[in-house]
Amino acid sequence: MRLYEAPSPNARRVHIFMAEKGIDCQRVPVDIRGGENRKADYLGKNPSGRVPVLELDDGTFLAESVAICRYLDWLSPEPRLFGEPGIEAATIEMWSRRSELNFMASVAAAFRNITGFFKDRETCVKEWGEVSAQTAADFVGMFDEQLAKSPYLAGDRFSIADITFVVAWDFAKRVKVVPLPDAPNIARWHAVIAARPSYTAE
Amino acid sequence: MRLYEAPSPNARRVHIFMAEKGIDCQRVPVDIRGGENRKADYLGKNPSGRVPVLELDDGTFLAESVAICRYLDWLSPEPRLFGEPGIEAATIEMWSRRSELNFMASVAAAFRNITGFFKDRETCVKEWGEVSAQTAADFVGMFDEQLAKSPYLAGDRFSIADITFVVAWDFAKRVKVVPLPDAPNIARWHAVIAARPSYTAE
Repeated sequence: MRLYEAPSPNARRVHIFMAEKGIDCQRVPVDIRGGENRKADYLGKNPSGRVPVLELDDGTFLAESVAICRYLDWLSPEPRLFGEPGIEAATIEMWSRRSELNFMASVAAAFRNITGFFKDRETCVKEWGEVSAQTAADFVGMFDEQLAKSPYLAGDRFSIADITFVVAWDFAKRVKVVPLPDAPNIARWHAVIAARPSYTAE
Repeated sequence: MRLYEAPSPNARRVHIFMAEKGIDCQRVPVDIRGGENRKADYLGKNPSGRVPVLELDDGTFLAESVAICRYLDWLSPEPRLFGEPGIEAATIEMWSRRSELNFMASVAAAFRNITGFFKDRETCVKEWGEVSAQTAADFVGMFDEQLAKSPYLAGDRFSIADITFVVAWDFAKRVKVVPLPDAPNIARWHAVIAARPSYTAE
């Protein structure tokens, strides 16, 4: 297998996931800033132009970080990071989606529209960036309350939901565009997650 | 089981999914326009305030339409709309996410920001709505090309990816904020999907 990637929160999700599974594979850097992901060769691998993409040994290309992780969860089932089929898997899906759609997507929209990081290739709307930053901040309480009740986001076990949320949280801290409120339960949980060897996976 | 819902593309995704499975359950309308989903009683069911929510027979609340569908796929496995574990499930996940993140989310952002449908409760940024409408339109070609090669979005079998895309496509047609380009392969596929009894499920 080969992982085509560029430094990004989505690549970090896959790195942590692979480290948890004890999986490694060849890495192929994609020059996003130089627009390599917009050229025909890369679009043949992933027509959406996004990174990362996993190339399987039979030449199949699999895009979308969560789809890549779901494939790896099947390839190497322990520990099971998407949960056992049934209510556990559905609960993990629910918290993964909240982490992604309610928080991570808003942090990303804030970052891109406020900083203009990709302004050479997309229209940035600063006012939307500010709305998105507030949306991300407004949702912090939901995660903090959940982590007051539960050791991990989706229950008693570490899962893909924790990976998505820690990656989004760290990105928000780093890019400093979201006014993150105090969140004592997230802070406690974060210390637990950051103590896992996978946290520093690259 | 009870489904708390309001008329929306997300509710329609669950309706089609349930119809494909032959599952029905009690429906409980939620008055979104009146702000019922922002009140304590509803937030106790779903702290994100979104609809739909599935209440299980043991009183557990499951939110996020895809998490609800994944639970129902386990409860009633035939036909298997998330695919067999492995490359099939991962491919379905990839196309589901493309349908959602590259298309449906942009259509929704265009609709909300251009029409101001929820302007009593959220800041609408018209310029962002226009950027989002163009993003949605720009991605149509990717889906049309896939449907030139494949009878269904994720391969030879109908899946949750087709449900998400048809719901988003129909919503885009109805609200008329996205300049949809001609897409002959989507049109052919749409006729096939619209012929399924689940297409008109309510």
